[in-house]
Amino acid sequence: MEKGILLIMDGLGDLPDRKGETPLSAAKTPNMDKMAKEGILGMLSPIGKGNVPGSDTSHLTLLGYPYWDFYCGRGPLEALGSGIKLKEGDIAFRANFATVKDGKIVDRRAGRIDTADAHKLAKLLKKVKIVGVEIIFVNTVEHRGVLILRGKELEAHVSGTDPHALERVPQSKALKKGSEKTARVLNEFTKKAMDILGKARENSKRELPANAVLCRGAGTYRKVEPFAKRFGITGACIAGGALYKGVAEYIGMDVLYVKEATGTKDTNLKAKAKHAVAALKNHDFVFVHVKAPDSCAHDKDFECKKKVIERVDKELIPALVKTGANIVITGDHSTPCSIGEHTGHEVPLLCWGEGFRVDFCKRFNEVACMYGGLGHVDGWDLFPILVNAMERGKKVGT
Amino acid sequence: MEKGILLIMDGLGDLPDRKGETPLSAAKTPNMDKMAKEGILGMLSPIGKGNVPGSDTSHLTLLGYPYWDFYCGRGPLEALGSGIKLKEGDIAFRANFATVKDGKIVDRRAGRIDTADAHKLAKLLKKVKIVGVEIIFVNTVEHRGVLILRGKELEAHVSGTDPHALERVPQSKALKKGSEKTARVLNEFTKKAMDILGKARENSKRELPANAVLCRGAGTYRKVEPFAKRFGITGACIAGGALYKGVAEYIGMDVLYVKEATGTKDTNLKAKAKHAVAALKNHDFVFVHVKAPDSCAHDKDFECKKKVIERVDKELIPALVKTGANIVITGDHSTPCSIGEHTGHEVPLLCWGEGFRVDFCKRFNEVACMYGGLGHVDGWDLFPILVNAMERGKKVGT
Repeated sequence: MEKGILLIMDGLGDLPDRKGETPLSAAKTPNMDKMAKEGILGMLSPIGKGNVPGSDTSHLTLLGYPYWDFYCGRGPLEALGSGIKLKEGDIAFRANFATVKDGKIVDRRAGRIDTADAHKLAKLLKKVKIVGVEIIFVNTVEHRGVLILRGKELEAHVSGTDPHALERVPQSKALKKGSEKTARVLNEFTKKAMDILGKARENSKRELPANAVLCRGAGTYRKVEPFAKRFGITGACIAGGALYKGVAEYIGMDVLYVKEATGTKDTNLKAKAKHAVAALKNHDFVFVHVKAPDSCAHDKDFECKKKVIERVDKELIPALVKTGANIVITGDHSTPCSIGEHTGHEVPLLCWGEGFRVDFCKRFNEVACMYGGLGHVDGWDLFPILVNAMERGKKVGT
Repeated sequence: MEKGILLIMDGLGDLPDRKGETPLSAAKTPNMDKMAKEGILGMLSPIGKGNVPGSDTSHLTLLGYPYWDFYCGRGPLEALGSGIKLKEGDIAFRANFATVKDGKIVDRRAGRIDTADAHKLAKLLKKVKIVGVEIIFVNTVEHRGVLILRGKELEAHVSGTDPHALERVPQSKALKKGSEKTARVLNEFTKKAMDILGKARENSKRELPANAVLCRGAGTYRKVEPFAKRFGITGACIAGGALYKGVAEYIGMDVLYVKEATGTKDTNLKAKAKHAVAALKNHDFVFVHVKAPDSCAHDKDFECKKKVIERVDKELIPALVKTGANIVITGDHSTPCSIGEHTGHEVPLLCWGEGFRVDFCKRFNEVACMYGGLGHVDGWDLFPILVNAMERGKKVGT
């Protein structure tokens, strides 16, 4: 039985600088170049040509759950990735502790309050009661958290209460008929939370008190066809960030707890490699996520992105290659260092292993991938291509 | 008026062996290579990238009837290809004579009973009567046959009675509401057939008596828009296997009786060529099917597949080229010799004729096709591409 690995280097794709180089083309990547020589390249449009992918819609689609059918909003995915168990119909939001003064937001992160302090404040919010709805607030890392509304007649088409700017906390509004109750409950929660947090002893010593909770990314959780049933293969996820673990949890993959996978630039890649190799022993498929290239690109730091790609090549790739699995290496979107944001440019794609053909390409970079033997691949076609390489495709017809 | 030919080499696509060769790349194919030089190549995904095609879904799609709208199950296609006339609403199954002993299947093919003996037993099955349903059983070649249920309130969502293993004959079950009657009738037929066949004099001398009928591939026949109306061109089919003739019959092409087209590895390709050339005189389009490459690949026989491709190049291609028609050569799926099963890998595609452009490619093989001027083509786009080359495309809009 053939195995498979999908390695996502977040934000991998880039645009050429003045010398015509991208972080990937400038990086020394002898291991991935060898794979390019022995494998086949292509260009990937995660959610269709020219479309700018979010990390959530892209990962869902690349893992075989096209976003137009399966995207449920960011809130539920973050909640699931933070280890929170959701029930069918729950409305989930991403939430931030923030500092409000004279009715206006002065810091969206409440001075990046530390996790332990945030946890104490989150406990106080258990006192918020609203008739007809169960309120669940959980803090995660630093100022971040998740708000869940559980009850009847709740729909998720509401505006958030985080303006992403230093202005007044806006009222949530229903964006579609049927979501009025959700907006009303969110506004009531926001008010009651401010009342409680404003009086909290824990805030009295803080220069930037965490005296408000801002919510965004509303979504309704629903169960989807589990990964193992959909594809006939078992899958495991090794990622640092909550979102990526949340996507994997949502589609029913095994989300492995890897202490060293931090989702930061100094993430321990050797540990990730070790865990991926181990996971492949009792799973058919492993999804490995490395956030750092995207983080560097958001900081517009070409050298940083180049170096982290070199580190992946040196510290992660050799162990994956040794497993003999079919390996797909790509990104969830481009984040050009010159722009510092996600863009809809195609993402370099490398496929290697016994289930793939071999083209003429010799190096792994944006230009080589334009001439790859796989051509231009849409995101929703990638997982079927990998499953086929693993000889696990289900025949359509006879 | 421009003519067109679609030559399907069944299971044509392959994966490279240790030397990097496939049967197509290793084969000496001067005639197809000349066509590649004068024509344009591409890579074909018959039912979408990575998806593993059945022969039925693929042929329908490649002939301009996308499987998601037109696939009716294998049973009706096999029945039509065996010369049986179906009526709208008929439920058809593929059937096998089998040997059952002490309630268990001991040979799924009743010792490959010969056609004449099977015919005698099939006649006995005319005695099977079930209230409210007309039962039609027809034997075709050796142990094979077709069962048709004609009547009201019949739907085809039922499990078959052929376990594809040496175990008890399973009961058919309705897989959807509305198919209960079909399952019940099939179970009653199975029982009555066993009673009659068990007592048949024809079976008394057989070491492996044909004392049971196993059914699978249930489908409902319905009329579809005829080929000539859909595309404004007339079409003829030259194939050996019942399925391919059945697909052509289903979509309203003329299915020609070619004695020499056997669907076996030693099929008479020169005879096929002669008939194809003749058919092109009074048809706009001819579909020629060669089963042998797939049969060799299912046997994991690289040399056999290579040789049959060479034989196609030598014995079939020159006559087709002489007609001056626009010619498309491809496969209905890949069957890599290393795997021996259908896979979802792309299939090499060669288009030649006055209606096609010319790219830089010089040879017809998997790697050349990766770099072909047509790029990566989905199966449902192939027939419009050919019809356009024949200058018979219908303008959409004005």
